[in-house]
Amino acid sequence: MKINGQQQRTIWEKDEMTIQIIDQRSLPHELVIENLTTTQDFMDAIREMHVRGAPLIGSTAAYGLYVAMREGLDPKAAVKALKATRPTAVNLAYAIDRILPTLQSIDNQSDRMQAALHNARAVTEESVVDCRKIGEHGLTLIEGIRQQKPDKVVNILTHCNAGWMACIDYGTATAPIYAAHDAGVPVHVWVDETRPRNQGARITAFELKEHGVPHTVIVDNAGGHLMQHGMVDMVIVGSDRTTRTGDVANKIGTYLKALAAHDNHVPFYVALPSSTFDWTLRDGVAEIPIETRAAAEVTHIQGRYKDQTLAVQLTPDKSPAINYGFDVTPAKYVTGLITERGVCAANEEAILSLYPEQQ
Amino acid sequence: MKINGQQQRTIWEKDEMTIQIIDQRSLPHELVIENLTTTQDFMDAIREMHVRGAPLIGSTAAYGLYVAMREGLDPKAAVKALKATRPTAVNLAYAIDRILPTLQSIDNQSDRMQAALHNARAVTEESVVDCRKIGEHGLTLIEGIRQQKPDKVVNILTHCNAGWMACIDYGTATAPIYAAHDAGVPVHVWVDETRPRNQGARITAFELKEHGVPHTVIVDNAGGHLMQHGMVDMVIVGSDRTTRTGDVANKIGTYLKALAAHDNHVPFYVALPSSTFDWTLRDGVAEIPIETRAAAEVTHIQGRYKDQTLAVQLTPDKSPAINYGFDVTPAKYVTGLITERGVCAANEEAILSLYPEQQ
Repeated sequence: MKINGQQQRTIWEKDEMTIQIIDQRSLPHELVIENLTTTQDFMDAIREMHVRGAPLIGSTAAYGLYVAMREGLDPKAAVKALKATRPTAVNLAYAIDRILPTLQSIDNQSDRMQAALHNARAVTEESVVDCRKIGEHGLTLIEGIRQQKPDKVVNILTHCNAGWMACIDYGTATAPIYAAHDAGVPVHVWVDETRPRNQGARITAFELKEHGVPHTVIVDNAGGHLMQHGMVDMVIVGSDRTTRTGDVANKIGTYLKALAAHDNHVPFYVALPSSTFDWTLRDGVAEIPIETRAAAEVTHIQGRYKDQTLAVQLTPDKSPAINYGFDVTPAKYVTGLITERGVCAANEEAILSLYPEQQ
Repeated sequence: MKINGQQQRTIWEKDEMTIQIIDQRSLPHELVIENLTTTQDFMDAIREMHVRGAPLIGSTAAYGLYVAMREGLDPKAAVKALKATRPTAVNLAYAIDRILPTLQSIDNQSDRMQAALHNARAVTEESVVDCRKIGEHGLTLIEGIRQQKPDKVVNILTHCNAGWMACIDYGTATAPIYAAHDAGVPVHVWVDETRPRNQGARITAFELKEHGVPHTVIVDNAGGHLMQHGMVDMVIVGSDRTTRTGDVANKIGTYLKALAAHDNHVPFYVALPSSTFDWTLRDGVAEIPIETRAAAEVTHIQGRYKDQTLAVQLTPDKSPAINYGFDVTPAKYVTGLITERGVCAANEEAILSLYPEQQ
């Protein structure tokens, strides 16, 4: 996707010695490109969230393993150290566990390095291809809405950042939006700011602005009003985990938007790569554990003041706060799932028709 | 209600020359008491929002009219000037229009002053009595819930600030909560921060903390998750305008909470003084105009940094934002209305049974 008119990814090879990333902590007020040259650089970048989003974390770890092999580290120790930077990131583990047996079987350091580099490139390209396919399948849905209102802009609401900044390119929830925009279908995006961490106001807005997609930032409270007044044609969100029955865990507040979409007959879609399915679960509300994050994310917020980025306190000193990171939207409120394999309804039968190997 | 252990109102007579208010712009980080001694002081306090909330604005204007009479101003000119400070505030107009004919009929300045003072005290006490009655009727509902879960805390979610800081004492949505707390019924309040102006995180949290009511601040996105997991026993919100059919206009985001309450069988109550009914309206979503406020309230937020209060920018420079101030919750999602006359269902027949004069 574009930044400053230039095609860009979130991670790329600058030269043989250097991998570059966007240090996302400075967004949206500043674009900082960071060089990663040592294993330690990669571990810091993942742990301190210079990079975020499951696919991007996976790709960063895979490149980190390549650099670790270049440094002559033991494959098993390197994988263990990289995994420890974000212990709950399933994609991270997957991206490096899969190459470990190969690395352990190679005696020559140069060959180990090449194998790890090949794996990093493969992990990265797989994510790009998956996102591009999600975009293509979602574009069909947007074109369908457009046909029902020719000469009018298609208004899409999204929550949080399931954008290309969380992936390598295209994003998941944003992939259909970029595909439509690039194909000349006029779209406008309502961007939920997504308290408490404001990934919408900070990152989704930044992405869309840089790529030239018309958009408007709203508070998380506003979506229901917009839907009541016919100002939203569809909702597309991402997912952190989806059950085999179609219940969707995603950023806190997603469920409230799904309820409003249902109440106003607005289609509600979830875009996700296949790796997001948890095939072992059937009841999302009962079975998906919801992480409680630091209360300081509720009581304080970060923004720009003059030339500084600083955090201001919003609440009285002695008022406690609590911070649930995610919620679960029951499948009955989900119109459809957009995966790299195609679009299906949010129920087990429909999902398994796309994934017969999970029968 | 209490601040620092002392019983307090939002406006009071310090002595014959001075009315005092809490300058609410400094909340929650500082408690500033302001002296109002000239008509200009009152006009500034209303216009610059040192005071806020319909009942408090009305009371402040009524005391301002008293001071204007003390200064020997013409009653009609004074009423006009005070009304111009917040042209759309219906309570403000009501609080001073009602005494104007009397003032115009009195020749003696001292008598005019006394009549205006009598009116200011009456307006103020009427609000206090209405709020106290709302509290008593709401307490019955809370006690009913408590009976179904003895030995457990009653968890109440509220949105925005329909608290005593918007009134003179007790508040509307908070009145049942204070009544329960003071009666020894254990309550805990989930306080929606209420973006964009954060009246919940700033003012409701401050009120509850000072009065000693257990509470937790949450982002506006969190309520649905809490309700899905049985952590909310009832919702009580205020209202800016309610139709004769029970549709409720209130702070943006109220509708989303009502949907979640409905989906999870959580009772959703609206507390309002009778003056909030608009007897001319039957379809809230179609007929109640929704004010669009400054986009800067979305793109920027105010908080405390070290010893200063300052506003930080949340969004990228070129990303537009829009700011709808209110939304409308259809009556079908409202369990009941708590008024000073009692509790009724949110439909025309039930409402008119409490207000037969509006048949």
